[in-house]
Amino acid sequence: MNRRLLLPVLLTAVAGLTSQAQAPRTHEFVPTRFYNTFSAAHPPALRIRPGDRVVTKTADAAGTDWNGKSVAPGPNPQTGPFYVEGAEPGDLLVVSIEKIEINRADAYSGSLLAPYAVDPSAIAQRVDREPRRITWQLDKTRNVGRLNEPDIKPPIELPLRPMLGCVGVAPARGEAISTATPGAFGGNMDYAGLVAGVKVMLPVNEPGALLFIGDGHARQGEGEVAGTGLETSMDVEFTVTLLKKKAAAWPRIENDTHIMVLGSARPLLQALQHATTDMQRWLMADYGFSERAAQIYMGQALEYEVAQVVDPNFTVVAKVRKSLLPKP
Amino acid sequence: MNRRLLLPVLLTAVAGLTSQAQAPRTHEFVPTRFYNTFSAAHPPALRIRPGDRVVTKTADAAGTDWNGKSVAPGPNPQTGPFYVEGAEPGDLLVVSIEKIEINRADAYSGSLLAPYAVDPSAIAQRVDREPRRITWQLDKTRNVGRLNEPDIKPPIELPLRPMLGCVGVAPARGEAISTATPGAFGGNMDYAGLVAGVKVMLPVNEPGALLFIGDGHARQGEGEVAGTGLETSMDVEFTVTLLKKKAAAWPRIENDTHIMVLGSARPLLQALQHATTDMQRWLMADYGFSERAAQIYMGQALEYEVAQVVDPNFTVVAKVRKSLLPKP
Amino acid sequence: MNRRLLLPVLLTAVAGLTSQAQAPRTHEFVPTRFYNTFSAAHPPALRIRPGDRVVTKTADAAGTDWNGKSVAPGPNPQTGPFYVEGAEPGDLLVVSIEKIEINRADAYSGSLLAPYAVDPSAIAQRVDREPRRITWQLDKTRNVGRLNEPDIKPPIELPLRPMLGCVGVAPARGEAISTATPGAFGGNMDYAGLVAGVKVMLPVNEPGALLFIGDGHARQGEGEVAGTGLETSMDVEFTVTLLKKKAAAWPRIENDTHIMVLGSARPLLQALQHATTDMQRWLMADYGFSERAAQIYMGQALEYEVAQVVDPNFTVVAKVRKSLLPKP
Amino acid sequence: MNRRLLLPVLLTAVAGLTSQAQAPRTHEFVPTRFYNTFSAAHPPALRIRPGDRVVTKTADAAGTDWNGKSVAPGPNPQTGPFYVEGAEPGDLLVVSIEKIEINRADAYSGSLLAPYAVDPSAIAQRVDREPRRITWQLDKTRNVGRLNEPDIKPPIELPLRPMLGCVGVAPARGEAISTATPGAFGGNMDYAGLVAGVKVMLPVNEPGALLFIGDGHARQGEGEVAGTGLETSMDVEFTVTLLKKKAAAWPRIENDTHIMVLGSARPLLQALQHATTDMQRWLMADYGFSERAAQIYMGQALEYEVAQVVDPNFTVVAKVRKSLLPKP
Repeated sequence: MNRRLLLPVLLTAVAGLTSQAQAPRTHEFVPTRFYNTFSAAHPPALRIRPGDRVVTKTADAAGTDWNGKSVAPGPNPQTGPFYVEGAEPGDLLVVSIEKIEINRADAYSGSLLAPYAVDPSAIAQRVDREPRRITWQLDKTRNVGRLNEPDIKPPIELPLRPMLGCVGVAPARGEAISTATPGAFGGNMDYAGLVAGVKVMLPVNEPGALLFIGDGHARQGEGEVAGTGLETSMDVEFTVTLLKKKAAAWPRIENDTHIMVLGSARPLLQALQHATTDMQRWLMADYGFSERAAQIYMGQALEYEVAQVVDPNFTVVAKVRKSLLPKP
Repeated sequence: MNRRLLLPVLLTAVAGLTSQAQAPRTHEFVPTRFYNTFSAAHPPALRIRPGDRVVTKTADAAGTDWNGKSVAPGPNPQTGPFYVEGAEPGDLLVVSIEKIEINRADAYSGSLLAPYAVDPSAIAQRVDREPRRITWQLDKTRNVGRLNEPDIKPPIELPLRPMLGCVGVAPARGEAISTATPGAFGGNMDYAGLVAGVKVMLPVNEPGALLFIGDGHARQGEGEVAGTGLETSMDVEFTVTLLKKKAAAWPRIENDTHIMVLGSARPLLQALQHATTDMQRWLMADYGFSERAAQIYMGQALEYEVAQVVDPNFTVVAKVRKSLLPKP
Repeated sequence: MNRRLLLPVLLTAVAGLTSQAQAPRTHEFVPTRFYNTFSAAHPPALRIRPGDRVVTKTADAAGTDWNGKSVAPGPNPQTGPFYVEGAEPGDLLVVSIEKIEINRADAYSGSLLAPYAVDPSAIAQRVDREPRRITWQLDKTRNVGRLNEPDIKPPIELPLRPMLGCVGVAPARGEAISTATPGAFGGNMDYAGLVAGVKVMLPVNEPGALLFIGDGHARQGEGEVAGTGLETSMDVEFTVTLLKKKAAAWPRIENDTHIMVLGSARPLLQALQHATTDMQRWLMADYGFSERAAQIYMGQALEYEVAQVVDPNFTVVAKVRKSLLPKP
Repeated sequence: MNRRLLLPVLLTAVAGLTSQAQAPRTHEFVPTRFYNTFSAAHPPALRIRPGDRVVTKTADAAGTDWNGKSVAPGPNPQTGPFYVEGAEPGDLLVVSIEKIEINRADAYSGSLLAPYAVDPSAIAQRVDREPRRITWQLDKTRNVGRLNEPDIKPPIELPLRPMLGCVGVAPARGEAISTATPGAFGGNMDYAGLVAGVKVMLPVNEPGALLFIGDGHARQGEGEVAGTGLETSMDVEFTVTLLKKKAAAWPRIENDTHIMVLGSARPLLQALQHATTDMQRWLMADYGFSERAAQIYMGQALEYEVAQVVDPNFTVVAKVRKSLLPKP
């Protein structure tokens, strides 16, 4: 493990800073060991305090790093775990994602729509059944990904929108869960909206929370129906804070425009049910809604996104637009 | 049935106009009889030609009209059916929705999240179990719906976005399907994006297509998780054209920004599968994609909306942003 | 329509016989017209009274009759409808199936496991993708079906157990439902246990009930995973009685050993939920169980069968063994 | 850990006995430490060889043992893990269950039908919403369980059929899975047919397999719809053997009458798909079926059981009757 403590940076205000009020620090952490389960059994890679900032890197889903070197087996080898001092079961860990940037010029994707994303008849009738690993060129200047294989018509070019497929903590009940899988602990949620600028909130199950990140996508369609995004390595920066004794059943995200809950389960409807149910709790706990008012309001105000339908659990995002929330 | 043929309007170019090239007409049709099944067994209310425009009205989901008068039983009594001259099985009926406007000052909604929209445990733990019919005031000037019942906190006010819950044709195989239900024939899709300005494309199953519309919502959240939108009566204007011998397995919508396929089924995943599968066909048939290219592209470009999870079939919308489609 | 009223047969005791107490009759009815929807819109083929017995025939699922003649289009063309005098919405129609016998020497089946019966990966990896229509020899003497195609290894021979795939009444709400589909009205339930000797109980939705039967299988595996049973024509005899003002949400069956409820829906779990829920109601209404006792008992006594996972709705059977029911 | 090596017993023929051909032993193992995850991270409680017999005990699902003493937290604390010498990934572990006997006079069960076993409306309309822990008297002489609480009508008495809810090995990919959950590794399958006399076959994922058992039920209904069987402690005896390099995707069971595959997943249909798919593989690998013949045969010969619909994954059993299998 190769890490270096950068100059402590004095921050004037850090929400959730623990009482000892030590100055927040910035840690530069370059991972050399990666993990394929979300689990409290792995030794902390770095101990950080609420308010601290971490500057780090993630390998791609197949374990290839920013130098094009294979550094770990797939799927989704994780950077971390980061042990957050003071985090205890029942707290909510807030991860403010400040930067997700591609750090190499290529990515790969799948070539076939995933088994559960299409009608079974479409699988039966497929002419070209062989999966291929498709290579994309990433053009950081123009902010596009380009697929220019002569035999694939038409040429495809799409804007980049870098995101992290995985942000997770150690699961509850001593479980060690594959990095292919999302759950109440976060994990492989593969949500295209998990981009720089969002706050990800994760319920803490174990002392220190044990934060993992990985599986960067230079871009991903909703549903992740090809089974991958544009898989590549990333430079990532984030800051952690803690909300003490703050209940949440499922991961939450806040960005400029929305508050969101990410439910993960199979079947797809159950993922939606989890997200919807926890959104109702959130509106009642923090936004002044009665049980009845929350339901009436959600019926006319809720939005949904289908994050992915390809992992062992599927992920649905329930969203409320902040501009439609009642004024406090 | 009270209808009046307005002045024929000469249109300079109407896509899909049938060969006899008669001048398009505008029909004003005020319904007096409504239907509770989508079926070819109902007598045509009006015979129209491709290119014709219809100016009409819809009662609300419970059968109350623009005068507050109960004119039909629920659910979702339909205006129509409109018999489209020349429409034959295998054609695609294009309904350009030009206007959906509220025509009274109130709407109603449900008060409880629907059975399949929340965790079963949330139903078991509900304190207030009695469904209520909630009345909303519709303020057309400010374009908002307002719920101002003293016992519901906080006060709720939301922007209006009038839409039609139902646009459908007679189903295939001689079926008569309840107006509660969506399917390959359209029907009660309850999609919040079915607003003025869109083109709805429906596969024709029976001679004349037999177009039905109804179930206006002054606004609706995605998922329609309260089991209703803001249910009210509407003034509706639309034009029909035909795409002859144009295959589509599921209803399609085009608006300014997107092309879309609406799949309806249970479970929710199957609705998504239908929409995804037919979107692939569409990209291959009309946008120059090979089988492989369509799949690679969809993996990184697809968007989804969850139209509703409350009707006998659920509805999922697969969408592609037109600005990301390859130039022809 | 070719039918002949046989000699009235005096029955000594007929449960549910209506008050006018006319002597039960036996009707011999040989169908010449068949239907492809369950619907109250079809004209009654025969009017019968509670207590009457019907001796009739069914064509196979593809519309081939007992002479090997194609007499109707598929799927599952129905014999009937039989109008039951005195049947009204809210009643329960009891159809005692007295005979289901093959009346020709061949049957056909599908050759591929159905799309939703196997993993999508199994579909993708299938070497032999072309569906074939497989012919079986029916040997009534030895009571076996035999498949003896030289290229199919090993030779297959299975005992016959003749059943009806379809027993249904006109659906509620004016719907006309394809004969491919099961529902609360019965229909294409494809339950291998629907054999001679059972009583099928169907909730009445329309005056006269309008009973349809069809889709005989000389044998069928549970799940009907090949999409068919051994499809053939049948000689059928049944007697109808009525239970007046007897609520049931779903079809029920009673045989020598079990009482059963058949729920039909997608997803599969919802079919199971319907069957379980209505079984609880039945135990509480007719067997003296309190709400709590019914649940405790069902947890330790319930049995299930998966009737089929191939029709537009799937069918699950919830069963209670009569020997485990409390003594009255 | 309290264990005693009994006299080695010379067995004349042990299928799968490894080459070193040591005499099989009988181990008496009384557990004092229990586990709440299926995981290779737990230290072996006992090392056994193929052919060895284990005489042991299991605590009940809540961690109460044969003396009525609370010895472990729930859910389903496991006895084991038993390290099987020579077991390697790719082998099939065969656990012949020779005895499952209740060893105390009481059991407990749930009192409410589980959330996913009934219609959501049945949950909403429930009068009595409070779950209770129900105590049953176990009468070993008469082989019945009796519920005799004065306020529960009617009195309930049901025959005992002791079974194990959990038989599992360490999962693949380094996962540690809660003992609430079944999967490809076995685990909490809660199958009422897992009784004395069956052979359970489990794919080996880790060296030594690491076999766990627990969660005895004196009786259980199919579906386990009350969320429990009659939960109690058990005396258990089993023998292990190994089938080297024998692929199986899911747990298999063989009893006197059937061969079976147990698929576990959500949704319920996916559990059925796994079981069906692996049964096809089994028929092709071991019973001489071609790809096509297997599918034709399964369509007319398959049986299913719904093991349970209450655990994080549901379990469906696909079965083939041995008397209907072709003669070798």
